[in-house]
Amino acid sequence: MSKQNLKPPRGTRDLYPEDHRFREWLFGHFRDTAHKFAFEEVDAPIVEHAELFMRKAGEEIVDQLYHFEIHDRHLALRPEMTPSIARMVMARAGGLRFPIRWFTVSQNWRYERMSRGRKREHFQWNMDIYGEPTVAAEAELIAAILTMIDAVGLARGDVKVRLNSRSLLEDSLRAGILKQRPEAFEPLCVVIDKIEKIGPDKVVDMLVDPTGEIRLEATEARDVVQMLSLSSLDDAVNAAPKGSDAGAELQRLWRLLEAYGIEDRVVFDASVVRGLAYYTGVVFEAFDTRGDLRSICGGGRYDRLTETLGGQSIPAAGFGFGDVVIGELLSDMNCLPDLKRRLDDVVYAFSEDERGSAIEVANHLRGLGRSVELILGTPKLKRVIADADRDGASSLWLLGPHEVSRGVAKQRVLESGVENEVEIANFAVPNGTP
Amino acid sequence: MSKQNLKPPRGTRDLYPEDHRFREWLFGHFRDTAHKFAFEEVDAPIVEHAELFMRKAGEEIVDQLYHFEIHDRHLALRPEMTPSIARMVMARAGGLRFPIRWFTVSQNWRYERMSRGRKREHFQWNMDIYGEPTVAAEAELIAAILTMIDAVGLARGDVKVRLNSRSLLEDSLRAGILKQRPEAFEPLCVVIDKIEKIGPDKVVDMLVDPTGEIRLEATEARDVVQMLSLSSLDDAVNAAPKGSDAGAELQRLWRLLEAYGIEDRVVFDASVVRGLAYYTGVVFEAFDTRGDLRSICGGGRYDRLTETLGGQSIPAAGFGFGDVVIGELLSDMNCLPDLKRRLDDVVYAFSEDERGSAIEVANHLRGLGRSVELILGTPKLKRVIADADRDGASSLWLLGPHEVSRGVAKQRVLESGVENEVEIANFAVPNGTP
Repeated sequence: MSKQNLKPPRGTRDLYPEDHRFREWLFGHFRDTAHKFAFEEVDAPIVEHAELFMRKAGEEIVDQLYHFEIHDRHLALRPEMTPSIARMVMARAGGLRFPIRWFTVSQNWRYERMSRGRKREHFQWNMDIYGEPTVAAEAELIAAILTMIDAVGLARGDVKVRLNSRSLLEDSLRAGILKQRPEAFEPLCVVIDKIEKIGPDKVVDMLVDPTGEIRLEATEARDVVQMLSLSSLDDAVNAAPKGSDAGAELQRLWRLLEAYGIEDRVVFDASVVRGLAYYTGVVFEAFDTRGDLRSICGGGRYDRLTETLGGQSIPAAGFGFGDVVIGELLSDMNCLPDLKRRLDDVVYAFSEDERGSAIEVANHLRGLGRSVELILGTPKLKRVIADADRDGASSLWLLGPHEVSRGVAKQRVLESGVENEVEIANFAVPNGTP
Repeated sequence: MSKQNLKPPRGTRDLYPEDHRFREWLFGHFRDTAHKFAFEEVDAPIVEHAELFMRKAGEEIVDQLYHFEIHDRHLALRPEMTPSIARMVMARAGGLRFPIRWFTVSQNWRYERMSRGRKREHFQWNMDIYGEPTVAAEAELIAAILTMIDAVGLARGDVKVRLNSRSLLEDSLRAGILKQRPEAFEPLCVVIDKIEKIGPDKVVDMLVDPTGEIRLEATEARDVVQMLSLSSLDDAVNAAPKGSDAGAELQRLWRLLEAYGIEDRVVFDASVVRGLAYYTGVVFEAFDTRGDLRSICGGGRYDRLTETLGGQSIPAAGFGFGDVVIGELLSDMNCLPDLKRRLDDVVYAFSEDERGSAIEVANHLRGLGRSVELILGTPKLKRVIADADRDGASSLWLLGPHEVSRGVAKQRVLESGVENEVEIANFAVPNGTP
């Protein structure tokens, strides 16, 4: 193999022990938060039938699919978790007690250009509620996201949630511009989602593109872009057509957010539509208030997904929260935790003659549930002490001929330097603190 | 989508909450055991450059590789973890402090026929030691495997380890049958590994196959098969050529296993060679003593792998321990744990008017780190109580108009039926046990 190929494929990561400790810490917070909200963890295979992810709305995520034919099957590495969860819910829809609350911490693949906060292989924490038709579900999900933000030590003002309702936009457009072509709504959302990245002019170009699916008149396209600039919930509710429930729903959601004590951490933003075609109602994303990074997480309501996949309709809402952007933000805000290796004891035999006794001591300590490094060769004692100190071990256990001949091990408590002798056969740790 | 495709791809599994609880439990034991032995967790991408896994020894695992060309790259889903770990060690060989002890809990893919204990996607616990040239490494690894077996509640006699040394066989063959063609040793081991599955006659056929890589004479092939029937370490050591270190190494390994107190759980078996070409020294596998299942885990020494991959030679030993066979064995031995959902509290608002207060109570309880299910709609109270009981919640918190008007929540302790009232604004749980 060439030197080049000692690297993992572009856009993927090797996790050395120090990297893995960060991941464990982060995933631990994902899981703790999910458990606080009484979500249960599930998982699905990483390789799925490709058709599960194929949709017709020009989404980036579908263009970026890793898919391949193998042994006469068309398979894909999942680009997101939501379709797999929907498939699992549908497969047992008759036997599940709704509403269900499921979460996953799992890998996704997307073939995309590398940039800050983007990888081709990344992990995502997903939380989904199936079977609750009202915004009570969205309120729980947003509260969970902010609970996670607080848990990792970010300040209250560092992250906010932008929130909108696709139904509000949909009701307005279907009463007007899209009256004749309601099917253009999903691809329109996919285009609108790019506004922050490509700017309003290019969005207008795409909305009027005569070869596209949307094909608005120029004035219509500009009206749509205009609607996205609303940043007050009241204005948006007033702009909605009569009979639209979407405004009242958003108002109810705000009252629930007040009860959670997080209404000041959520802002209405009519330009948020999310880039996935399947969202149908409330959509939201968390962002760093400095505005330096891509969104930290995003989600919303997707009541028609199970229907699109050929099943009965089941109301659903959820979000995906990646591991990459939050890592960048924690680093930017100096909130990365200092995670030490977990190591309790180091056991050292002076020579081959004492190895058997060293193994006995390690056995005893491991039986107590402690993390014990048994030195395998016979490196210099000086090096062993330096390594044990560096790795944060609490005790070093020394087995030399002088100890073994008397059936004892010498324990050196590393912080204090105090030394004890412990009888090996009758192993009992002095002071209860080995 | 068709009904058919509500299933995951053949050979893969969906994990519903009850399945996931088992996985968490099992992986928890993998990790606890690894920590007792002071191994550090690492990870690598699931998709690697395919060439990392391509070897020339006719191994089943290479034939079963999921590999594909995509965006001008030849990629593969990893069939095993060892080559990725070797790549990671090589990439940082200059900066690592040897010996290193790393472990992983990760997915692998193999395209194979389905049978009991086999999946196409499976998880594996891997433990590897790099930088220790002596059997002290193998002894630690075998001790870790048996510690894991004990941790999951299997009886001491349920599982044993079969052990052999490829060097012992290699020294014998290179002094004799393979004197002129030492390169035939690796493919020979791959063939021998099949003996339990296909029987000695078919192994002889493959060893003499004139179109194969090994091409022994019929008498030579029968001699090889004969050598595999040795089941006493002493006989095997006596059969080895003079000057072979392999016998002395095995004898030292046995003395170390005695110090660990596990020598009665390890048996010498000259037919164990393992099916991977890269092993060079001691090889071993754990098996259920009833003999009903495939091997539970397998491993050994592979001192030449980093060299084969184009780097410097680094002594190494390790094992892989899958999640499927151990699951079968635990089930057969009635050792599957009874894992309940983790749920502490259920909070219920009688109507929309009390929802805000219910959210406040849930907030308080979650702030205490408890797992709290906030009932989202307004199902019948009877159903809520039945579900809370079934899910093992300790308390049900009731918010009706009578409570909310007085600023309190009613707590019902589910086990005793005792009811308390708790002031919401000044939330303090009576008796310290909510």
